Amino acid sequence: MSETTVATLIIEASERDSDLLWVSGFRAGDPFVFVEIGGRTHLLLTNLELGRGRKESRVDEVHSWTEAAAAAADALGRPARYGEVVAHFLRGHEIAEVRVPARFPLRIADELREAGISVISAADPFYPGRGRKSAEEISQLEEAQRVTEEAMLFAIDRIRQSEVRGGELHLEGEPLDVDRLKQMVRIFCLEREMALGEFIVAPGDQGCDPHDCGSGPLRAGETIIIDIFPRHLTTMMWGDMTRTVFKGEAPAEVRRLHAAVQEAQEAAIAAIAPGVTGDAVHAAVEEVFARESFPTELRDGDWVGFFHGTGHGVGLDIHELPRLMKGGPELEEGMVVTVEPGLYYPGLGGCRIEDIVVVTADGCRNLNRAPKSLEV
Amino acid sequence: MSETTVATLIIEASERDSDLLWVSGFRAGDPFVFVEIGGRTHLLLTNLELGRGRKESRVDEVHSWTEAAAAAADALGRPARYGEVVAHFLRGHEIAEVRVPARFPLRIADELREAGISVISAADPFYPGRGRKSAEEISQLEEAQRVTEEAMLFAIDRIRQSEVRGGELHLEGEPLDVDRLKQMVRIFCLEREMALGEFIVAPGDQGCDPHDCGSGPLRAGETIIIDIFPRHLTTMMWGDMTRTVFKGEAPAEVRRLHAAVQEAQEAAIAAIAPGVTGDAVHAAVEEVFARESFPTELRDGDWVGFFHGTGHGVGLDIHELPRLMKGGPELEEGMVVTVEPGLYYPGLGGCRIEDIVVVTADGCRNLNRAPKSLEV
Repeated sequence: MSETTVATLIIEASERDSDLLWVSGFRAGDPFVFVEIGGRTHLLLTNLELGRGRKESRVDEVHSWTEAAAAAADALGRPARYGEVVAHFLRGHEIAEVRVPARFPLRIADELREAGISVISAADPFYPGRGRKSAEEISQLEEAQRVTEEAMLFAIDRIRQSEVRGGELHLEGEPLDVDRLKQMVRIFCLEREMALGEFIVAPGDQGCDPHDCGSGPLRAGETIIIDIFPRHLTTMMWGDMTRTVFKGEAPAEVRRLHAAVQEAQEAAIAAIAPGVTGDAVHAAVEEVFARESFPTELRDGDWVGFFHGTGHGVGLDIHELPRLMKGGPELEEGMVVTVEPGLYYPGLGGCRIEDIVVVTADGCRNLNRAPKSLEV
Repeated sequence: MSETTVATLIIEASERDSDLLWVSGFRAGDPFVFVEIGGRTHLLLTNLELGRGRKESRVDEVHSWTEAAAAAADALGRPARYGEVVAHFLRGHEIAEVRVPARFPLRIADELREAGISVISAADPFYPGRGRKSAEEISQLEEAQRVTEEAMLFAIDRIRQSEVRGGELHLEGEPLDVDRLKQMVRIFCLEREMALGEFIVAPGDQGCDPHDCGSGPLRAGETIIIDIFPRHLTTMMWGDMTRTVFKGEAPAEVRRLHAAVQEAQEAAIAAIAPGVTGDAVHAAVEEVFARESFPTELRDGDWVGFFHGTGHGVGLDIHELPRLMKGGPELEEGMVVTVEPGLYYPGLGGCRIEDIVVVTADGCRNLNRAPKSLEV
């Protein structure tokens, strides 16, 4: 009997699973099998993907799914189910237990278990090492955020250049509404190799629901939250950045709202360093809002104030660990996080300011340089 | 005791799970909980999504995840794990058994089971009804494919307008390589409200690996496979279309290859009707290739000839059921499928032609009108 080895198993499309993309270096839109046995990595690919897998992946061995399925069917004397093919492959490598991600597909897990393989779902993060970015990953994120910042400056400049007619913004003689501005920003990103799907341009009270993507006309005299998160087409890294602008002269209470958010963001960035917890960074934001008398509370069944996390890791996923929030973990050098406090009061408007920072040996480095001014 | 009811449960981000998008009408990038109990549908959403969920989803009830988590923690006397919150919610609705999709996350399933809920993973398709499109869905797919076809004609026209210098294509004085052509097509799609991520422009032998997306210069005198699959930003429906072109006069054997693929595609389209199986449609293609003496076989470890399916359903997913392949199921009126036979011989080149058709009462209707000519 050989010694018992626990293998790592992931089955997913790597375009939907960044752990798999990260560990295999192989990009595919359909699910495939990744196995790591004692440090040696394997892929099982259909014939359609075999050639590309051998060329593009960074695993040690690429196997034919078709051959594995035939071998399993031979052993069973009938066509093998998906999980039975994987179980047969594992047993061929003397594996009886696998560690899989929390999101591993239940049906395949049940088929593996029925075939006698012990399946243990690991808690997230599956690869804690992903949180600390390599120098190459940081430079890819820097490039992604550089384009994101250019896109933000472009969007704000469109608003700056616009004219106000009957309260609504117009550019080059046509109404500048949310859809038109978004379209311009999407094309701007695409010309720089970044794909931008749904994102947020939320005027006035729409901005008070932080996940409302915004719609309709853009007007002078109200806050406009712009939150842009495009993904690089080649490196697959995300950018993420938010500014809040106001066309015209803002009333004192809106300026005070914006100043509090900016101060809270600066307090959070000043707090970030290795060994500091995400919890502590979040508390620094809450402290500023408390001191400036911006309460967080339920009004008519909806939350107002500051009711989301201060930030999140970003990389191959737009939302990664670590979180800067209540209970958030200790930060480590090389982690890359957003810092995005906000305040939301229907009637007054919403305000959020977001940069991305890299945790360094003695603090953090801001990947953004763009000004945070409110009035345009 | 109440009668035992089996609930349906999905937990995923609807942007990654088209079943969930389809059944809830709620689009979100982070996972949320959907439950259907005796025909009544529920969402459990975090505070961040509550407002938008009530506005945009088409479920009967939207609940607060935060409140559900607090109630579960109260009952347990400690913080509840994710699956325990869901289990507590289910028991509150007198549910002890749930039917979940095959890809349901294992860890939550195990937590539900430990909390006494029976979890049964259903085989795909989870919602077989999704295969038969509604009139509204068909018109959305028609619109998506109309833009896709325009993008294809635009791409082919770029190649037609190009000049050949030293064998390579040039447009407006600059090299027209794969990356430049892709960029132009992406922007073309985006201007028409469709997002186009990675897609295929595969010259020469690159086209012989049907999943090679292509790279490098485009040349006269070799096949170029163009396979465009953009997604509509609002309706989230996919388009999908392929043409193969050849800059200059093609040799007789390439023309014969292309003619065989076109004939096979016509045979497949002629075969499609309600009651006909995907298997039979696929066999019609194989028959043409056999008659025209284009063998499918392994050469030096790689497949040549026709070694992928004839087509697949398309809708909110780019690859849906039914499949037109060996063992493919009976087609039904309202199903929407691609028809995309191909032939691949390194040294000679690759060729694939793809349209989308809707299965009608007595046959099918082709959503494409674009010519299939080889030489440009």
